[in-house]
Amino acid sequence: MMFRKILYPTDFSDCAVKALEYVKKLKGAGTEEVVLVHVMDVRGIATMTTGVAWSGEATALSYEGEREVQEMMRANIEKKLEELKTEIEAVGLKVSVKAVDGIPFREILKIAEDEDVSLIALGSHGKSNIMEKLLGSVSEKVIRDSKRPVLVVKRDPI
Amino acid sequence: MMFRKILYPTDFSDCAVKALEYVKKLKGAGTEEVVLVHVMDVRGIATMTTGVAWSGEATALSYEGEREVQEMMRANIEKKLEELKTEIEAVGLKVSVKAVDGIPFREILKIAEDEDVSLIALGSHGKSNIMEKLLGSVSEKVIRDSKRPVLVVKRDPI
Repeated sequence: MMFRKILYPTDFSDCAVKALEYVKKLKGAGTEEVVLVHVMDVRGIATMTTGVAWSGEATALSYEGEREVQEMMRANIEKKLEELKTEIEAVGLKVSVKAVDGIPFREILKIAEDEDVSLIALGSHGKSNIMEKLLGSVSEKVIRDSKRPVLVVKRDPI
Repeated sequence: MMFRKILYPTDFSDCAVKALEYVKKLKGAGTEEVVLVHVMDVRGIATMTTGVAWSGEATALSYEGEREVQEMMRANIEKKLEELKTEIEAVGLKVSVKAVDGIPFREILKIAEDEDVSLIALGSHGKSNIMEKLLGSVSEKVIRDSKRPVLVVKRDPI
């Protein structure tokens, strides 16, 4: 059952979209189930809300603003995940959805173990170029520490 | 044609053997052709023959010995590649074989481009643990610089 259950983490970047095409195609090689995952990067939120706090607005307001922005982001993510679920189910694969907070590579590796997936399929580069340059890409760290096979789909040359 | 033509580099390590099982299984996802590659690491040969030269034997003899060892290694590699070719053909895939000298990740990336492969499938760790610790693993460098998707099969936990 080498390709039976695939963990597909997405940050909705172009590269992740491209990786999904490979996931769908793997049905022919025995894929039955996809674990569709989005990790909301807690470090990203911290940076963003610090940005708000430093913008000169009243702190109490920015705290409210922060909560509102987070709620909007969460609603948006859930909507996108539902759309992707429908898209993947359309090719005849079973889909479970997980939206979690954390440090992406850690959560991805944890879910890979918890769900006992056959393979992790992901894009080589996410949305946050700056974060990736500072911290290394999520895919690099997933590949390094994963016990399971990893399919890395590279981004298109710019 | 996401999985049509796969570049499968092997150093005959356990991890590479494991990766081959994934390659065979990808036939169901549209794989038709496998480019089976072994790169004889020129740095490895240098180390080995320097070892012979430093062993205290006559230099002229060690030069002859070096040639002889290299020829034996090459014959052995060709035999192994032929066996693998037969094994891959047995599942109904077309196979072309390449045995080249060079620095493995560079040759792998070059062949990936020259052969316009859809995917590179390889083991995460090769035979030479010491070389990998010094220089980084071949798979790391292939993933970093490849324009094409890479399937990395991790070695079994030790």
